[in-house]
Amino acid sequence: MTEVIYSRKVQYYETDKMGIVHHSNYIRWFEEARGLFFEKNDLDYAKWESFGIVVPVIEVSVKYRNHLTYGDGFYCKVIPADFKYVKFSFDYEIYNSDTNKLCTIGSTSHCFLDKSLKLLRINHEFPETFEKMKKLFKEGNNSEPPGIR
Amino acid sequence: MTEVIYSRKVQYYETDKMGIVHHSNYIRWFEEARGLFFEKNDLDYAKWESFGIVVPVIEVSVKYRNHLTYGDGFYCKVIPADFKYVKFSFDYEIYNSDTNKLCTIGSTSHCFLDKSLKLLRINHEFPETFEKMKKLFKEGNNSEPPGIR
Amino acid sequence: MTEVIYSRKVQYYETDKMGIVHHSNYIRWFEEARGLFFEKNDLDYAKWESFGIVVPVIEVSVKYRNHLTYGDGFYCKVIPADFKYVKFSFDYEIYNSDTNKLCTIGSTSHCFLDKSLKLLRINHEFPETFEKMKKLFKEGNNSEPPGIR
Amino acid sequence: MTEVIYSRKVQYYETDKMGIVHHSNYIRWFEEARGLFFEKNDLDYAKWESFGIVVPVIEVSVKYRNHLTYGDGFYCKVIPADFKYVKFSFDYEIYNSDTNKLCTIGSTSHCFLDKSLKLLRINHEFPETFEKMKKLFKEGNNSEPPGIR
Repeated sequence: MTEVIYSRKVQYYETDKMGIVHHSNYIRWFEEARGLFFEKNDLDYAKWESFGIVVPVIEVSVKYRNHLTYGDGFYCKVIPADFKYVKFSFDYEIYNSDTNKLCTIGSTSHCFLDKSLKLLRINHEFPETFEKMKKLFKEGNNSEPPGIR
Repeated sequence: MTEVIYSRKVQYYETDKMGIVHHSNYIRWFEEARGLFFEKNDLDYAKWESFGIVVPVIEVSVKYRNHLTYGDGFYCKVIPADFKYVKFSFDYEIYNSDTNKLCTIGSTSHCFLDKSLKLLRINHEFPETFEKMKKLFKEGNNSEPPGIR
Repeated sequence: MTEVIYSRKVQYYETDKMGIVHHSNYIRWFEEARGLFFEKNDLDYAKWESFGIVVPVIEVSVKYRNHLTYGDGFYCKVIPADFKYVKFSFDYEIYNSDTNKLCTIGSTSHCFLDKSLKLLRINHEFPETFEKMKKLFKEGNNSEPPGIR
Repeated sequence: MTEVIYSRKVQYYETDKMGIVHHSNYIRWFEEARGLFFEKNDLDYAKWESFGIVVPVIEVSVKYRNHLTYGDGFYCKVIPADFKYVKFSFDYEIYNSDTNKLCTIGSTSHCFLDKSLKLLRINHEFPETFEKMKKLFKEGNNSEPPGIR
């Protein structure tokens, strides 16, 4: 398990008329942070796409605890949570950089698709990437799930 | 319970380089659909804000089943799910208008805040709105939850 | 020249902490309105893309005169302005639906590109589309510009 | 004149199905870069807003020359262009960080408004800020324009 921390400042266009960051942006920040996770581990999206792999989000959940607004800095912890043959997930925690207050927690689930958006079993097609991913995530249930044989 | 159906077409700027709608936009579509729900029930955000009430999202979850892309139409069912004294939630189902295929399901939870972003107990401050909301949602547990006395 | 009018309501996520619509969204609204123009004239983006044509924006300008905010309706006039062999442009006017106040004026210029994002001369490749476009726009200078022979 | 350079990477959600950055995002990048300009010169938005000043965009124009996509880095030069009593403007140049190719040029014009979105003459209300701004921008026509007496 390799935790990665992504940080930046809130942008003005990310706020709404409530005066705080619009809730949809946290999902985009998860994506930014996830991009850094892949990049730091030499597994970035751009490379994957050049192999013809896309990695859509198939599930997302977020709990909003404290708001952020323009002028605030934040950091986002990306925690690899689970990795199966065709599916993997991350947990996220977003903190206010000045106060270290926890603002948002969330998680995303992903699968691997080929260019025609069909499910890709990376253990068959890209065994090296598969092994790398497996090491990065908690080593969960390694037995192939029956549903996808 | 009053179900509302919101529909429109996918916009080009809502797609990403995967060629499909970016997952963050579904959360925005929930908001659009919720706005229609409030409007149809004469409870729209704009009015609330003139009373000094804001209604933030405190939780969101989405499951992505089938993608949508530019040129597709979609409709979103908004289903009032639960209503408590300080918290309420909606369920959502987004369908492709042409195929009636279920694309996305989700839910959001909300609370009421005053202008200074402090928790507002609308049963005390706006009893009429409270009664209206209660009728619109499934009449759940009406006993005041102990934690907020 | 065929003017098209596109209308809808402002969404909450389109506002910023100034309490009004973020200026970047008007550019997205121009795109929405342009989409309707192409659709009404049986020339929509989705079809073009199926032919392998993309139509990027190569220039945009906007003047903001009066703001819009959440709860407002607006309508956008799309006025085909100029059409040359490889380039065409639209003018836009956005009005508040309730007050008919002019809020924003703008223009966009476009060209035709093939899938590999190389310049496409539609008069050669898609003469029928070219003729249709020419009729829709003000019949300007029909002599082929010297620079692109 | 103080030129500021802002840089970061393109995010996935900033691309569209053309496979490149959606044109509306460059306007948001101008805002990000402008924020850095104000911050570096100790004049940031957040502070202004605490004084009750907002600084809307009243005009924007962009020319798109070369595209950027996911995985690219970019840098944006912010060039203070003109400063009058109630209006000021910036020029921008966005470059690909890897190739130093010029991708986009643009400009924005701004005014100062008070909290109720009425025009603010900062030379009267905030003379210190006014003098600071004047120094930062090219010292243009210092005579008060007749139209606003």
